Amino acid sequence: MRVKYELKHICKQSGARYGILTVGDLEIETPIFMPVGTKATVKTLSPSEIEEVSEGLILANTYHLWLTPGMDVINLHNGAKSFMQWDKALLTDSGGFQVFSLSTHRKITEEGVHFTNPRNGDKLFLTPEESIKIQHQIGADIIMSFDECPPVDSKREYMIESIDRTLRWAKRGKDVHNTDQALFGIVQGGTYLDLREYSAKKTIEIDFPGYAIGGLSLGETKKEMDDVIKHLNNILPKDKPRYLMGVGTPEDLINGVIGGVDMFDCVLPTRNARHGQIFTTEGRLIIKNKEFENDLKPLDPNLPSKISKYSRSYVRHLIRENEILGLRILTYQNLLYLKELMRQIREAIKNDRLLDFKEELKKVYNFEV
Amino acid sequence: MRVKYELKHICKQSGARYGILTVGDLEIETPIFMPVGTKATVKTLSPSEIEEVSEGLILANTYHLWLTPGMDVINLHNGAKSFMQWDKALLTDSGGFQVFSLSTHRKITEEGVHFTNPRNGDKLFLTPEESIKIQHQIGADIIMSFDECPPVDSKREYMIESIDRTLRWAKRGKDVHNTDQALFGIVQGGTYLDLREYSAKKTIEIDFPGYAIGGLSLGETKKEMDDVIKHLNNILPKDKPRYLMGVGTPEDLINGVIGGVDMFDCVLPTRNARHGQIFTTEGRLIIKNKEFENDLKPLDPNLPSKISKYSRSYVRHLIRENEILGLRILTYQNLLYLKELMRQIREAIKNDRLLDFKEELKKVYNFEV
Repeated sequence: MRVKYELKHICKQSGARYGILTVGDLEIETPIFMPVGTKATVKTLSPSEIEEVSEGLILANTYHLWLTPGMDVINLHNGAKSFMQWDKALLTDSGGFQVFSLSTHRKITEEGVHFTNPRNGDKLFLTPEESIKIQHQIGADIIMSFDECPPVDSKREYMIESIDRTLRWAKRGKDVHNTDQALFGIVQGGTYLDLREYSAKKTIEIDFPGYAIGGLSLGETKKEMDDVIKHLNNILPKDKPRYLMGVGTPEDLINGVIGGVDMFDCVLPTRNARHGQIFTTEGRLIIKNKEFENDLKPLDPNLPSKISKYSRSYVRHLIRENEILGLRILTYQNLLYLKELMRQIREAIKNDRLLDFKEELKKVYNFEV
Repeated sequence: MRVKYELKHICKQSGARYGILTVGDLEIETPIFMPVGTKATVKTLSPSEIEEVSEGLILANTYHLWLTPGMDVINLHNGAKSFMQWDKALLTDSGGFQVFSLSTHRKITEEGVHFTNPRNGDKLFLTPEESIKIQHQIGADIIMSFDECPPVDSKREYMIESIDRTLRWAKRGKDVHNTDQALFGIVQGGTYLDLREYSAKKTIEIDFPGYAIGGLSLGETKKEMDDVIKHLNNILPKDKPRYLMGVGTPEDLINGVIGGVDMFDCVLPTRNARHGQIFTTEGRLIIKNKEFENDLKPLDPNLPSKISKYSRSYVRHLIRENEILGLRILTYQNLLYLKELMRQIREAIKNDRLLDFKEELKKVYNFEV
């Protein structure tokens, strides 16, 4: 098995977990945030830049790579890492989430999901076995079970039906999994705490080296998300990594960590950057705003890096003029900030003061709970 | 004077010039191609990448920087170099060309040009004195006289009128020029060889440390362009640098060099890159083409660089998916190729074999003359 996890310390103040996730040769301190490289590129950045603003573990999306460039091209390169020239660690999702959120004419059957490729109208069919097989070919270090991600407002009856099918899919995926890639299970159940518990316990019975919490950050309230995470904290095994999918604001990250989560991913920091919005140690900035027109300070004066040489005024100019260098700089800033935030969070866990640190972060990011 | 030129060798085979252009601390071997950073950024690239793919001398456009971010912001940064964090050499044009090509409701008077800012409808007025003053503030090492660039099909009578006005403008610009920046004169005259000669001789009388050939590569035939350059070769002073504005294909570059030109600029290599077209040592490639889908070779196998690790197949995928990393890689390739081409041209001049080299280049780029 090329992935191992060791829980090293539990914060006495918050219950948050500090651990080491070993992926091949890479020892990654957790909790971490993982940048998303949907189409085998973390948008705007080169591999060496991704290395600078990550802990070396990033995501790629199975659905996107399967549809384009397609598995023939990926196989020709012996996998996505070589395709994108990324020699650190990679995680792929199962494609399930995108089948449900991006495709059209979707029909779920016991066997798998029929859907139409929105790019060209092709009829496609994805099964749990096929998802695992594709992920074998993409060759990430961590791969995910094929699951259904039902809408957060799904009726209880539908949610039960969906969880049971996802459990059968998880078992089928595991049955065909025969590589040293770490295959994680995914817990679903919307905001129904008892169904989350049911999904978690049954998924744990199948036995995976790590567990993801799916179906959150999709429209539920902050309290609902928090309740689910906290409820699962007592159910998920302590000695396995937990991965909260699709979460990436400073507020949600620290709350997830306090809820016992070790890994996070989200397109938000890279997407927001392309809309001119950045996270800094001084809070959120909308860099296009007039207030930065004459601001000679770096984007984030407390976070020195190779982009510190650019003034806010210059970056504002670039963004207003749709210059690509501006998008590069803002993407770099957002990921670097989240890397630094997670480092500070890990330090606070080790020092048993994560709740104190959360109070400090609340002042900067103006959140309540 | 912070700019000096020394002619070192004339190719016995072709008459092309090899020289050293000293700009501040920088000794630049000529002929060179200068990448264009219109809005204080060479599109898609960071300053350190620009350094890798240039000889350290790049352009910025006075017209664009004057309109946005405007001189207040540029002055706040003490000039464009500090604004864009470029510590090598910079050249600015006068704004004249853009006033004629981009602005609306243009009215030329003896005093200067009235026009409307196409971005916001503001009425603006640019004079030779104002252009020089703006270029003082932008702070480039080499700056240009404010000229009119008449359409290539202008009638002879209009061309004479325009040349005479441009000469008066050149004189007025020189009269207010009081810094150590090198102010170059610009020769106009369309495709009328006698008018080109007239414009050149009168501009030389005013006396500048360098001379540009403007108004070419604007729709005239290759032969017409070549005739103008060759005609001016005998008129322009041997001991001053000659700069052919707006030229940047391999074919036009080598023909310009053979016509005695030392400096070139063009947006074409950066613009074409963003349209998926590249120059390589094997000729032009349209990287989106199906033929590259399974091509594992680097973009340019004969030009090793930090982008050689990416397969053509991967770059094709990035470009098809509008991924910014793809635009970065192609821009890098195009500028690196032109840098390498100019290095090879300089070597050929020094070895008195530029015509032989041109024959080799003709085979790669399929041009006739």
